[in-house]
Amino acid sequence: MIYRSSVRKVYVIGIGAGNPDHITVQAVKAMNRVDVFFVIDKGHLKDDLAGLRTELLSQHVEHGRYRVVEASDPERDRTADAYRDAVVDWQDRRAEIYQQMILEELGEDQTGAFLVWGDPSLYDGTLRLLDRIAARSTMSFEVESIPGISSVQALTAAHRLILNRIGRPVLITTGRRLAAGMPTDVDDVVVMLDGGSAFADLPDTDVDIYWGAYVGSRDEVLVSGNLQQVKDDIVRIRAEQRERKGWIMDTYLLRRRPEER
Amino acid sequence: MIYRSSVRKVYVIGIGAGNPDHITVQAVKAMNRVDVFFVIDKGHLKDDLAGLRTELLSQHVEHGRYRVVEASDPERDRTADAYRDAVVDWQDRRAEIYQQMILEELGEDQTGAFLVWGDPSLYDGTLRLLDRIAARSTMSFEVESIPGISSVQALTAAHRLILNRIGRPVLITTGRRLAAGMPTDVDDVVVMLDGGSAFADLPDTDVDIYWGAYVGSRDEVLVSGNLQQVKDDIVRIRAEQRERKGWIMDTYLLRRRPEER
Ligand SMILES: C[S@@+](CC[C@H](N)C(=O)[O-])C[C@H]1O[C@@H](n2cnc3c(N)ncnc32)[C@H](O)[C@@H]1O
Ligand SMILES: C[S@@+](CC[C@H](N)C(=O)[O-])C[C@H]1O[C@@H](n2cnc3c(N)ncnc32)[C@H](O)[C@@H]1O
Repeated sequence: MIYRSSVRKVYVIGIGAGNPDHITVQAVKAMNRVDVFFVIDKGHLKDDLAGLRTELLSQHVEHGRYRVVEASDPERDRTADAYRDAVVDWQDRRAEIYQQMILEELGEDQTGAFLVWGDPSLYDGTLRLLDRIAARSTMSFEVESIPGISSVQALTAAHRLILNRIGRPVLITTGRRLAAGMPTDVDDVVVMLDGGSAFADLPDTDVDIYWGAYVGSRDEVLVSGNLQQVKDDIVRIRAEQRERKGWIMDTYLLRRRPEER
Repeated sequence: MIYRSSVRKVYVIGIGAGNPDHITVQAVKAMNRVDVFFVIDKGHLKDDLAGLRTELLSQHVEHGRYRVVEASDPERDRTADAYRDAVVDWQDRRAEIYQQMILEELGEDQTGAFLVWGDPSLYDGTLRLLDRIAARSTMSFEVESIPGISSVQALTAAHRLILNRIGRPVLITTGRRLAAGMPTDVDDVVVMLDGGSAFADLPDTDVDIYWGAYVGSRDEVLVSGNLQQVKDDIVRIRAEQRERKGWIMDTYLLRRRPEER
């Protein structure tokens, strides 16, 4: 039997999707126990994520003993037909990089943290990445996941929406999947990761949209209404905003009428 | 044109699903601007909700100027066949009670708040209630919704889960609906409001369950594994816990294998 006096700890901390006040007390307490913050260079999200992170650390972390360590994600093959396979392969290369980083930077009795956009459980790969690292290496570390306000919650709060209608289900899906059409068996559909404007191609005349970009942040833009009536506005605003900021991050709820909330 | 010098403000504040540290900074700031906290007597949830509320107010609200006003919900016809209709009618009686309460208790330039379990956008009727009141009365008030960590997020954090598999959707539904079977077109299904143990009747042999009761609180109980192998344990633990506390509140994720996260 091997006696282990200490074990590395790694927090995955949800920090909200743009509003620094969406941070929880639990996240603040955890951040104050961290020696090393690991930073994933998230491409176009980089500036906003870095901005939010810097603001949160300077506002809420009292000790000055922490270090910030950055790593860049490996290049991703975005042209690949098999999106899922490309992502999985990319995740493997990523695991290697992060394993190395944790091993080199985190002392055996130290605590590390990944600050994650929104909530760690919603379309974020950090927990999966840490699972991969744990599976492939002999390095032992303990992972703790700390929830954060997701972009979906920032969206519903901004529109003062309830996601579910009484006793009814809600589907959370991607722009890519919405391209196949509005599901027939669910009337409330949240769409994330829509690189194009999948909503604009829907023929449905009985659907309302509640759309938001950069929700929760100072750049927040909201549009809602009958999908067919407002879709052109949203497409135009999306283009303008993307032009202005260099990228766009938006989420929306599609709700089949009759509205009853 | 009528000039209005002031308008009543009502916050709907998500306070998390049992862990007081799940409160956000935004919620704390809002709570510190509140004159009157409105309390809905939530039946069996009452004690836990009251406990969490009291703890949050005493820990985070600095001024001592606030009042707490309680109202009981009207009796609900739980035997009604038409569940939805019963709920809708009950909501109308409720709107009347709360309209009265706000009118009597909240001065014209005062700020009120409803502290809501979990997140206000997930199977919670408070925003709908306020919409109803606004529609039926001449009293004008402004509603602001403040997101909170939901029980679903407390569940995923406790199990260190990612809700979505890569590029795939997730359905959030009720125990009542799950009784019709595991959906065929979605492999990840979150179930809430399961008064019975709907999972135990599923014939599926390719499904894992990640179950949690009183998640995030001191009473948290977690079970996970192959549904067919662990379902009897969960049914037994549910019965024991319900016996012990008088009621149970649980949520679970059903995940069709192959597991790939
Ligand atoms: C990789 S996912 C990460 C989601 C994140 N974990 C969360 O909980 O919100 C990125 C997607 O989240 C959505 N998103 C994130 N932040 C957003 C924001 N501030 N406003 C609107 N949508 C946002 C967009 O749909 C975007 O494509
Ligand atoms: C009326 S809904 C309210 C949900 C709440 N607004 C939220 O965001 O979690 C009540 C349901 O939420 C789930 N729930 C709430 N708190 C929970 C907890 N601490 N642990 C497990 N499930 C919980 C259960 O499925 C319960 O039937």
